[in-house]
Amino acid sequence: MDAIRGTAKAELTAPVEAFLADLHARVSKVTGGSPADYIPELGKVDPSLFGIAIATVDGQIYEVGDTDVPFTIQSVSKPFMYGHALQRHGRPTVLKHVGVEPTGEAFNSIVLDEVANRPFNPMVNAGAIAVAEMMPGDTQEQRIGNMLDLFSSLAGRRLGIDEAVFRSELETGHRNRAIAYMMLNTAMIERDPNEVLDLYFRQCSVNVSCCDLAIMAATLANDGTNPLTGKAVFDAQYVRDMLTVMNSCGMYDYAGEWAYEVGMPAKSGVSGCIIAVMPGQIGICVYSPPIDTQGNSVRGIRVCQEISSEFELHAFNNRTNVRSVVRRDYRADLVRSNRLRTLEERNLLATEGHKVAVLEAQGALFFGSTEQLLRKTSALAADSRYVVVDFKRVHQADTSACKLIVRAAKSMEGSAAELVFASLAEDDRLDPLVRALAESQHGHRVRQFRDADAALEWCEDQLLAGANFNHGTKFAVSEINLFKGLSPGECRLVESVIRPLVFERGDVIMREGDEAKLFFVLARGTVSVQIKVHGKGNRKKRVARSAPASPSARWRCWTAAAAPPTSSPMSG
Amino acid sequence: MDAIRGTAKAELTAPVEAFLADLHARVSKVTGGSPADYIPELGKVDPSLFGIAIATVDGQIYEVGDTDVPFTIQSVSKPFMYGHALQRHGRPTVLKHVGVEPTGEAFNSIVLDEVANRPFNPMVNAGAIAVAEMMPGDTQEQRIGNMLDLFSSLAGRRLGIDEAVFRSELETGHRNRAIAYMMLNTAMIERDPNEVLDLYFRQCSVNVSCCDLAIMAATLANDGTNPLTGKAVFDAQYVRDMLTVMNSCGMYDYAGEWAYEVGMPAKSGVSGCIIAVMPGQIGICVYSPPIDTQGNSVRGIRVCQEISSEFELHAFNNRTNVRSVVRRDYRADLVRSNRLRTLEERNLLATEGHKVAVLEAQGALFFGSTEQLLRKTSALAADSRYVVVDFKRVHQADTSACKLIVRAAKSMEGSAAELVFASLAEDDRLDPLVRALAESQHGHRVRQFRDADAALEWCEDQLLAGANFNHGTKFAVSEINLFKGLSPGECRLVESVIRPLVFERGDVIMREGDEAKLFFVLARGTVSVQIKVHGKGNRKKRVARSAPASPSARWRCWTAAAAPPTSSPMSG
Repeated sequence: MDAIRGTAKAELTAPVEAFLADLHARVSKVTGGSPADYIPELGKVDPSLFGIAIATVDGQIYEVGDTDVPFTIQSVSKPFMYGHALQRHGRPTVLKHVGVEPTGEAFNSIVLDEVANRPFNPMVNAGAIAVAEMMPGDTQEQRIGNMLDLFSSLAGRRLGIDEAVFRSELETGHRNRAIAYMMLNTAMIERDPNEVLDLYFRQCSVNVSCCDLAIMAATLANDGTNPLTGKAVFDAQYVRDMLTVMNSCGMYDYAGEWAYEVGMPAKSGVSGCIIAVMPGQIGICVYSPPIDTQGNSVRGIRVCQEISSEFELHAFNNRTNVRSVVRRDYRADLVRSNRLRTLEERNLLATEGHKVAVLEAQGALFFGSTEQLLRKTSALAADSRYVVVDFKRVHQADTSACKLIVRAAKSMEGSAAELVFASLAEDDRLDPLVRALAESQHGHRVRQFRDADAALEWCEDQLLAGANFNHGTKFAVSEINLFKGLSPGECRLVESVIRPLVFERGDVIMREGDEAKLFFVLARGTVSVQIKVHGKGNRKKRVARSAPASPSARWRCWTAAAAPPTSSPMSG
Repeated sequence: MDAIRGTAKAELTAPVEAFLADLHARVSKVTGGSPADYIPELGKVDPSLFGIAIATVDGQIYEVGDTDVPFTIQSVSKPFMYGHALQRHGRPTVLKHVGVEPTGEAFNSIVLDEVANRPFNPMVNAGAIAVAEMMPGDTQEQRIGNMLDLFSSLAGRRLGIDEAVFRSELETGHRNRAIAYMMLNTAMIERDPNEVLDLYFRQCSVNVSCCDLAIMAATLANDGTNPLTGKAVFDAQYVRDMLTVMNSCGMYDYAGEWAYEVGMPAKSGVSGCIIAVMPGQIGICVYSPPIDTQGNSVRGIRVCQEISSEFELHAFNNRTNVRSVVRRDYRADLVRSNRLRTLEERNLLATEGHKVAVLEAQGALFFGSTEQLLRKTSALAADSRYVVVDFKRVHQADTSACKLIVRAAKSMEGSAAELVFASLAEDDRLDPLVRALAESQHGHRVRQFRDADAALEWCEDQLLAGANFNHGTKFAVSEINLFKGLSPGECRLVESVIRPLVFERGDVIMREGDEAKLFFVLARGTVSVQIKVHGKGNRKKRVARSAPASPSARWRCWTAAAAPPTSSPMSG
């Protein structure tokens, strides 16, 4: 046996890195724009700094260029402060203080929504100042501490303030001071504007790197949980609000074109950073100080356009295919359960099996796919007595899907067909649906089986029981298939050498490795043969199930064991 | 056997209908707003009309209330005319004539983007007038005909114009006339404003029902293909543009709050209709004439809020779970292929099998899930000689995913591990990936097998071949396992009653139902046992594969048949 060849590590994600490296090299040639200088300290930056970082929802970081150089977060702080206000005060309170309507105005507009008496949205300075006032804390020190805690928990490391930029903003922020006093004038804020602005200028002066911001963006992609630390910073419901406002107001006057060409919720800062979020997938940060007249990093926009295009990340690229929810369907006249059946039973199932339909679902269940699944199930139910829905290949179900399925169970009551579910509880992926069914008075009436085979077998049993294949528990040797051809005398001879054994439901008759000294003939009931399956939780797999004749109708749900068999062992 | 019980048809989608009926009843009590009367003819409508229709991407319609009453489409015509212009003239030309930037202005604003010399976006009247000018046709009759053809193909039935409303708009549309002349003045339009406005007023006066508009919205949800007729009206790339502009500009000044609370691209019309689109899932239309001061149907907004909330349809509800892309992984020391192996081989695989890793992928492949899959594959590759990726449970792959996978194949070159793909070509669902691999100079080097079992067997064979389990094609009876215990004399006796047979790769040795008169002993090579599987395309499934010893390393891709076996049949 050769040893594993070479030492080169296989990096299948190398194409992502190669794409970013090439993109960085190409966009390095893009010129235009210049660093913001309305805050004098910002104008001192090296304009050639250029970093790109992508963080995944599980904390993998792809980076190229100046990704560790510190810069001030500026307006990219706004969505996170907004999320924090939502998290602490709830939606109604926050909406009283700041709206969600985009404006055609610039980010530093002094125009306020005088009808609702609030700034238009939390991404313009006025709105961000209103949000800054909502930071909890009894003293200014506590509020500053809480603000720094927020950004540190988002970055997954301790962050601090760039004092020089803070001083510069404090000394030159006349326009923001004007905005704050206008807001005090109409009671849009209530505290001392100097205190509120002190916090606002500090939040804009938090030092971050390109990688920090990519992780912060990935925290939003990951429903509010920091992928590096696992800390839940925001509830998913508030992440949705943050993304919505970023999407409509995050790129200043460029929001429309951004939505058209890039199509990811984003926020830019005048220090030259842009974050973009692809929900469920990644957070992106680009840092390049030269900004255009709308306040957005020139290279940042270009990079995000290319990443969106290359990886098809536009929010309105349709990634939903509800039609694939039904993998296939079949009927029990053509596909039978693994249970061994007599010729007589097989013949009956061949003619009657079409009354049992099995439908294999796959993928994620949400409104559209669930509606499709239920509709196709209905169509099968129209000429079936039993419809088995196999959830083996379904890997998630949202609340809407769970509600619809539970209610659908109710709608089957009194109908000609009975609904049967399989493979719901194979592992924990469908726990919300299992719980919803268990908690509903209708849902718990749906029969559930461990897998499609067990469900199919039960349905077959119902068909056979309906055809009076049922027998009692007493029997003569002559009734047993194996001995069917014997004469009465031969049967008596057999009866003299066998003895009847009765096993209860769940009894183990023999185990793998037991000494084989008895020969069993199964007269009544069913016996399962199970093997251990490698994988999580020592799961067992039934590889065969045998029975001499159809048992009477009985409900074997996936937790129950086999029916009590009556056997006739012969000495070996 | 009972007959199928009862006659009630099972309608598992009844909960959707029940929800809509209840919603209609509740929202019927909502008052407020009044029908638009700036167009006198519109003011004559019955304000109590109220219909809700939902159409799925395959044309199922859920409806309640006044869903067949005709009304004029008004501004809901705008996104469709915009899509038609994109389809006919392409993105660059259309962008020259109309922007994509939302404004804080009302829908009938006369404010134009004088920097770019174009209206701000196609949802304000000015933009819609610029788009109307782009309707192809040599004469006004042809342009009107083309416009009616467009809306008819979207509704799936022939539509006409409400002449009374058209006359009323024509006579009272002074403001729109002013806008058109302003645009002529700055060369934003070039044709006679009266002709352009004639078409614009006609497009706004097309008679539709609530169901028609739900189907039009579902056409957008369905990537531009009408779900009723199957006609492709728009390319998916232009549907993305239409949805983006609807999302940012579709609800007039209410766009921000709509995005916050409803979160679906939408468009409203002053006749009291609103359409909303959930891409990949459904199109919604609500019709209720009373509108608010922003021009949106009061009940329409309420209904869409509740549908969004009940069915979790907000665009920024995260429905993406990239972590589920890897269903499970295992190594060949614990899970073996179905091929029968000798004790010696089994022992070797138990110690060496960990060098083969198998990873089961599932769900949809797009950037985030593919990155996750490739990264986990890399991690397994780090201490493996072969990594099998089984695509059996993957139901779709976008272009981005295909590109990444093809490039990943290249990145494995020179690495210690070899990448092996399984179940790619089981049906047509992954054709784009199969084609991308075939077309790439790197991709075609990845070995592909029909299923994970065939791939695993090949990997096992490589391990065994490396351990010098290989033998030539000549053999003595004493080498055959079955005869291992015999004395030389007994072997000679066996040799006298058997005769060697040689089969070529792909030969069929026997078929189901053949007379069983020979007893075969397999000396060299491999034999597969296949059964026919019910389902599409008469697929065959290999249920067992047997071989007496490991063959030398050879590539059996999924299209190739078994290796040539050499058998020794004995007369039966």
